[in-house]
Amino acid sequence: MPRIAVLGATGYTALELIKILLNHPGVEITVLTSRQEDSPPISQVHQSLHGRLDLNCENLSAAQIAERADYAFCCLPHGASAAVVSELLANGCKVIDLSADYRLNDSKVYEEWYGLAHPDPNRLGRTVYGLPELWADRIPEQNLIANPGCYTSTSILGLAPLLCGGFIEPTGIIIDAKSGVSGAGRSPKLGTLFSECNEGLSAYSVGRHRHQPEIEQVLSDVSKKNVEVTFTPHLVPMDRGILATIYPRLTKQATEAELLDVFRGFYDDKPFIRIVEHLPSTKDTSGTNFCDMTVRFSRDQLIVLSCLDNLIKGAAGVAVQNFNLMAGFPEATALLPSHQIPSLTAN
Amino acid sequence: MPRIAVLGATGYTALELIKILLNHPGVEITVLTSRQEDSPPISQVHQSLHGRLDLNCENLSAAQIAERADYAFCCLPHGASAAVVSELLANGCKVIDLSADYRLNDSKVYEEWYGLAHPDPNRLGRTVYGLPELWADRIPEQNLIANPGCYTSTSILGLAPLLCGGFIEPTGIIIDAKSGVSGAGRSPKLGTLFSECNEGLSAYSVGRHRHQPEIEQVLSDVSKKNVEVTFTPHLVPMDRGILATIYPRLTKQATEAELLDVFRGFYDDKPFIRIVEHLPSTKDTSGTNFCDMTVRFSRDQLIVLSCLDNLIKGAAGVAVQNFNLMAGFPEATALLPSHQIPSLTAN
Amino acid sequence: MPRIAVLGATGYTALELIKILLNHPGVEITVLTSRQEDSPPISQVHQSLHGRLDLNCENLSAAQIAERADYAFCCLPHGASAAVVSELLANGCKVIDLSADYRLNDSKVYEEWYGLAHPDPNRLGRTVYGLPELWADRIPEQNLIANPGCYTSTSILGLAPLLCGGFIEPTGIIIDAKSGVSGAGRSPKLGTLFSECNEGLSAYSVGRHRHQPEIEQVLSDVSKKNVEVTFTPHLVPMDRGILATIYPRLTKQATEAELLDVFRGFYDDKPFIRIVEHLPSTKDTSGTNFCDMTVRFSRDQLIVLSCLDNLIKGAAGVAVQNFNLMAGFPEATALLPSHQIPSLTAN
Amino acid sequence: MPRIAVLGATGYTALELIKILLNHPGVEITVLTSRQEDSPPISQVHQSLHGRLDLNCENLSAAQIAERADYAFCCLPHGASAAVVSELLANGCKVIDLSADYRLNDSKVYEEWYGLAHPDPNRLGRTVYGLPELWADRIPEQNLIANPGCYTSTSILGLAPLLCGGFIEPTGIIIDAKSGVSGAGRSPKLGTLFSECNEGLSAYSVGRHRHQPEIEQVLSDVSKKNVEVTFTPHLVPMDRGILATIYPRLTKQATEAELLDVFRGFYDDKPFIRIVEHLPSTKDTSGTNFCDMTVRFSRDQLIVLSCLDNLIKGAAGVAVQNFNLMAGFPEATALLPSHQIPSLTAN
Repeated sequence: MPRIAVLGATGYTALELIKILLNHPGVEITVLTSRQEDSPPISQVHQSLHGRLDLNCENLSAAQIAERADYAFCCLPHGASAAVVSELLANGCKVIDLSADYRLNDSKVYEEWYGLAHPDPNRLGRTVYGLPELWADRIPEQNLIANPGCYTSTSILGLAPLLCGGFIEPTGIIIDAKSGVSGAGRSPKLGTLFSECNEGLSAYSVGRHRHQPEIEQVLSDVSKKNVEVTFTPHLVPMDRGILATIYPRLTKQATEAELLDVFRGFYDDKPFIRIVEHLPSTKDTSGTNFCDMTVRFSRDQLIVLSCLDNLIKGAAGVAVQNFNLMAGFPEATALLPSHQIPSLTAN
Repeated sequence: MPRIAVLGATGYTALELIKILLNHPGVEITVLTSRQEDSPPISQVHQSLHGRLDLNCENLSAAQIAERADYAFCCLPHGASAAVVSELLANGCKVIDLSADYRLNDSKVYEEWYGLAHPDPNRLGRTVYGLPELWADRIPEQNLIANPGCYTSTSILGLAPLLCGGFIEPTGIIIDAKSGVSGAGRSPKLGTLFSECNEGLSAYSVGRHRHQPEIEQVLSDVSKKNVEVTFTPHLVPMDRGILATIYPRLTKQATEAELLDVFRGFYDDKPFIRIVEHLPSTKDTSGTNFCDMTVRFSRDQLIVLSCLDNLIKGAAGVAVQNFNLMAGFPEATALLPSHQIPSLTAN
Repeated sequence: MPRIAVLGATGYTALELIKILLNHPGVEITVLTSRQEDSPPISQVHQSLHGRLDLNCENLSAAQIAERADYAFCCLPHGASAAVVSELLANGCKVIDLSADYRLNDSKVYEEWYGLAHPDPNRLGRTVYGLPELWADRIPEQNLIANPGCYTSTSILGLAPLLCGGFIEPTGIIIDAKSGVSGAGRSPKLGTLFSECNEGLSAYSVGRHRHQPEIEQVLSDVSKKNVEVTFTPHLVPMDRGILATIYPRLTKQATEAELLDVFRGFYDDKPFIRIVEHLPSTKDTSGTNFCDMTVRFSRDQLIVLSCLDNLIKGAAGVAVQNFNLMAGFPEATALLPSHQIPSLTAN
Repeated sequence: MPRIAVLGATGYTALELIKILLNHPGVEITVLTSRQEDSPPISQVHQSLHGRLDLNCENLSAAQIAERADYAFCCLPHGASAAVVSELLANGCKVIDLSADYRLNDSKVYEEWYGLAHPDPNRLGRTVYGLPELWADRIPEQNLIANPGCYTSTSILGLAPLLCGGFIEPTGIIIDAKSGVSGAGRSPKLGTLFSECNEGLSAYSVGRHRHQPEIEQVLSDVSKKNVEVTFTPHLVPMDRGILATIYPRLTKQATEAELLDVFRGFYDDKPFIRIVEHLPSTKDTSGTNFCDMTVRFSRDQLIVLSCLDNLIKGAAGVAVQNFNLMAGFPEATALLPSHQIPSLTAN
């Protein structure tokens, strides 16, 4: 039974990850880390885990982690993550990295958008981007997976079928994205205080959000075109969820029904993509690993609507999909009811 | 001192209107109406008015209203409104109509979007659209003003300077708009229950929201161009506020600074338009009659951000601006502190 | 494999029930009912069920239901429920009734608090009150279980150990209870609109809430004392959760530590009761079947704090506990991860 | 025209204070302070003030402040406040202190509850507690007023008429109080992040909240009895508002109607106390200086419900009441519409 480490266990994504892994019949969580020196019990850090997991958050070296775990989910901040990941790999521990450190192919682009020299540049361009709906076949043999960003998955999943099918122009795509506050993390900041967010709605980081180059790179990779998007994120007074309202330019005439069929074909056997005919709400996907999407026309302007739970399908849930594929479990293990999953025979 | 009637006094817009009018040194509220037969005190309908206004909501005919009031703010639903308005006017009562009934110029367009024959078609095309930032000079002499919609004002105010200045194409404009729940009114409906809205975010009425033809008509009128927009409204889990994120296509090169100057020039002496350099939040305008806006570029895509309080600047506040202009009060009376308003000498 | 009917499938409790039952490895949902004549698919009624359950909400007679289901979870309103339940039982279908109809022992008390004559009075006083933490041994052999109210469970679970142990006076107990809005149901009402609840906090039904006699009866039954409580419910601007802050009068000196031990002893082997030392938050129990509780002293005033998710431990989750006990499944089936439950061998 | 300083201008209370003072026809805000070295414009600190106040937040000494202002509203943290206040007074500047520093009469009690030696102990016991509903006659001649706490005012106002009239026991009073998040201030803390508060409800500081000794002292002073309360604060997922649900023990028989009359008599000429017959909601007082209250019986247990806006009637609004009394303005100036206030002739 694979032993699991969760690094940076104090954040919201780590909490979701732990909850999902506690549902996983084939793994054991053996290591939790944080930078706090007093090694608090995890049930003190996350009160909702009271009675569910009896482990402390320890401040451990990569070598110590690798001794006690076979797989590490790395929920550290960018920059900090790559430094640890390379050591974990050197010590034989496989890694799903939830930071942005291994998502971009080019260390110059990384430096431009993240403002620091990449600590492990040689792995860029060689690390698989862990969006199983696109690259499930590449993931199983990997030791390191770059887990996607939340805005990124919402946007990419809503555009990939259209770009790959040649239905839309690769440039001039407008992505108006809206996110709940948990996406901003659990470190106290003025902008994420209740009294700042409640009854407040605004755009932020317009034209300079780090998920923009990630969206463009992945969509370019998958469609073999040079994709360019305008990406406008907004902060919405809710805890969970991302909705992307996407305005692409059609290259050929098509109806809503035809385009929905394109989506259904593209995601045919994917358990977590739901092509719906109603306008999806973040509430429908909250607490789940589903991504709901549909299309609409307003006169002749195509609109794609795509939504998911930013902490699950946008982070912890897709990370477990990646882990399952790496470790030989059915992809949906711990994410759908176990009696609905064909085979639960692990490696 | 003008006597004021508020028709349809049980809704959210009427409540805001009453609160603003209680701040107005030059008027007296004399009539409140609703269809309830038992004539409840207004402080029972709106508990926050306890001790502030001692009037009952009565079920009155237009003639009865006109006898007891010089001006009527009509907060009735569309269709119902026009039926009453024509009678009020016939009885010598001036009207600010907050419904959609007199906003469109063409009864066929009205019938197409509202699904009913217009009850008073002859006034269409001859009624002034009450957006004082555009047509303050036309409002004073009117007996009837069509008060604008909330999404509409947010969008029009963000686009008018650019269209009038020829900076953007009149077509292909994308308006991604987000509104708080109060915009949907106070009649109990499944979709506006707390448990449906909270933690829920979705688009609605895509391609068929009634504010789309209104935006297009008014922007076409003011710019003398045939304006076409894609308008996508979203419901956001907050009570108040609208934010419009607008993606127009530039016709000529310009910088953010230059475009901000265009806005500043256009709204030079307008007390309620604030051209800001930060990204505006609905929270900044909540409870006020201000509309905050700015511009940004994302690569070469221009983005206009415009926000306001849907119940005030988007409804009750602009209605009082219109009333002030009709009745000869300074435009900002009851909407800004009275000692900051130059002259408070009414007709 | 038992076949399950969910009656009144359109509400919030029914939705939670369906989600839990979809997690249950030993049952099949075969019937969903509602009074709607057009038999909509459940995924249209609850969009979050898209792709997860392919059944329509049908308007069926009790006989039709009993033909297609072995167990019925009855989520109908009080009054309506008892009428159906007696027929279901007559047709051989076992019932977990989530309404209030079979909770009270005395039809006169029912009539006094619910304002109608009980439709099936002979079963009152003979139906087991389904709080498995108190009466797990009585539940297995029953054909009908009265599922507890949400405020009721929160309050009873926080008081039973102290009353049974003789630590507190049976009268003069103050229960200041706070609930999220979902407890008020999914029927559109003014008081549960987003714009009424958001930023609004108030008490309601003070001195006349129907859960008061239920709390008193069950606590009297379990403690063999004549219990009297002051019960003050409040509506809080959140979707889920109940917190009861309870002020009993001690009969003998005791410390916090001693009283926590009393609680731990009383709920020793109960999987869903978590005795904690921190002040519990509704958020910790949200989406789970846990009830978290602790005690504190303020000078010499004892305070018990008890919280749970009103839709789960307060309704759908405890209903599944009851079903599991009735049908011979381990009590926690579908409520805790299946690999953590000792035996999953059903009858 | 008195010149006003607002010290500690970056917080939520200061923002409300500035907004109210901008409505005041008889004052000029001349000084804003904060500890930030770069002296940011106030419209950058509080975006909602854009275009409304053209001042920077400066880091000034007490002497510098006293040179430029006649009155200072001190919104500094406790401890820091007293240090500045004594210097301001020495320099001839009158002070309304919104911190807790001058509220308690006894420096030992202060030290016990605030954990530090009082920086200015000689003024304790000689400073008037600024609750104008109790001591309006003492306030005018003062140079320093201790502005009350938010929970404190809500509780005191709900109990004073009953204690002074001898209707309730002075001990054994339970105050179950619930507050919005803004009461916790604008400094980033884990516990006030949106994602921690939203959908979360819990008690905090049970038995050790600093408003408990303040409530007891003021109620003892006003009633000449030794008052003891159990005070349990809760954090509610809303921005604004406090509701106190108070359970006193009656000393003599009385009806709801009789007790409401006691309240009406006690607060006869007080413009901001509204004795209502419905159950008050925080929403009714939000954004206003009103305190709404009523009484109910549950069997023979009396319950007092009292609510207000914690930032206004609980802080900034009552501060302006105090200032008005000190400076010779009508008490309600800037807090009610100016045309409703009898005389606006200042000193």
